[in-house]
Amino acid sequence: MEPRHYQHTAISQDVDFTSKARFTSLISNMLNSAGEDAFRNGFGIDVLSKINLGWVLMRFAAEIERRPYEQSHYTVQTWIKEYTSLTTTRCFRLLDENGECFGKGVSNWCVIDFAQRKIAPISAMNMDVMQFVTDKDIPCAAPKKLRPFEGDVCSEHVVKYTDIDFNNHMNTMRYIDLMLNELPLDLVSSETPLRFDIHFLKESAYGEKLEIIRKEEGNNFKFAIRKEDGTLAILSDFNFLK
Amino acid sequence: MEPRHYQHTAISQDVDFTSKARFTSLISNMLNSAGEDAFRNGFGIDVLSKINLGWVLMRFAAEIERRPYEQSHYTVQTWIKEYTSLTTTRCFRLLDENGECFGKGVSNWCVIDFAQRKIAPISAMNMDVMQFVTDKDIPCAAPKKLRPFEGDVCSEHVVKYTDIDFNNHMNTMRYIDLMLNELPLDLVSSETPLRFDIHFLKESAYGEKLEIIRKEEGNNFKFAIRKEDGTLAILSDFNFLK
Repeated sequence: MEPRHYQHTAISQDVDFTSKARFTSLISNMLNSAGEDAFRNGFGIDVLSKINLGWVLMRFAAEIERRPYEQSHYTVQTWIKEYTSLTTTRCFRLLDENGECFGKGVSNWCVIDFAQRKIAPISAMNMDVMQFVTDKDIPCAAPKKLRPFEGDVCSEHVVKYTDIDFNNHMNTMRYIDLMLNELPLDLVSSETPLRFDIHFLKESAYGEKLEIIRKEEGNNFKFAIRKEDGTLAILSDFNFLK
Repeated sequence: MEPRHYQHTAISQDVDFTSKARFTSLISNMLNSAGEDAFRNGFGIDVLSKINLGWVLMRFAAEIERRPYEQSHYTVQTWIKEYTSLTTTRCFRLLDENGECFGKGVSNWCVIDFAQRKIAPISAMNMDVMQFVTDKDIPCAAPKKLRPFEGDVCSEHVVKYTDIDFNNHMNTMRYIDLMLNELPLDLVSSETPLRFDIHFLKESAYGEKLEIIRKEEGNNFKFAIRKEDGTLAILSDFNFLK
């Protein structure tokens, strides 16, 4: 199967004060394309939810070379690299109007059984998923292994109504926003290329209080998002390449 | 001139935990359609910014009868009702796949002169704007007069990177999110129709600390968002119609 393409335009809601698409809007459009592509493949959340299954994002990595300006059009190219018994790897490239690549992404997903609240084998979908695998390789290094670290609590956040998604959990983009907000303003708004890795370790629910923990090492910023009971919801790594 | 139409789909990023489009995603698509329509009319921010002018939303009202479910398609219908020497009134209707109206909106805008940091007459654009006025009437009552009130501080918010837009100010949607988050969860996520009014009194910049003030009277919730110097940034009114 060939990669599919989804069109986007950076609108005013997407851009930061430098008029460039926020990092989160690029990631959001990658992940939205994943949802739409799964829908077209016949294993979207509409179909899976009927058999009490759903997709869960486990790990994600992105390399963003530049962020498009407001009103620019771009394309998300997406393809499935592989399935293992428990996971699938979906890849992304961001292409500008000239077809030039300015961003890449690799995501690892698994299937959750909502009735049992645990990971299910891919085979639980009872579908010939291998027909959707492409020959195309991953566009950048897979999500790297992240480990807990010692850092400082730089802010707190209580999970509120607009943070939670259809799964009743804190939304992926809101986690990333919380961390972007704790980066130096001149760096996060700059044109510096970024390598970004994130692990989703534990969901957060409405009303939970989260601590954002940061450790800065030059142009590398490690983040953890910790729940009140001490468990980690998120581990992440922002590596500015300058 | 006839009203124009813009297509939207409620995707997973748009919906709340009840799988219905968040109120903010409907408002956002109304206002995005306004931007796109202005762009098509030749007085979008691309053109105005070159002569140091920009549109500023002063007041807005919406009546939402129901919120569409994930994956449903809907249309924003938008038209200009009138121009005065200092303002313009733009209207919206939300139409479902059968063309039935499930939401309405009325917005009042003015032109700002960025060099002088003050309101400019519509004539500063030096354009024949009257050609874009339609015969179509406003779809619901215009934004009502809101007055300061005594209420309780229910939360605080520091303006961060992901809150600010291309103008360097706190984004409209983020203000509305802050207030939605202070409504009772069962009410904000319910199917109850809502009449919403908001006045934008003063902009908020990066780093400013805001207080969210609320006064509850049955199914009516008045909000003010106050800056540290005591000036009001926002006055708003959420009236649930049950």
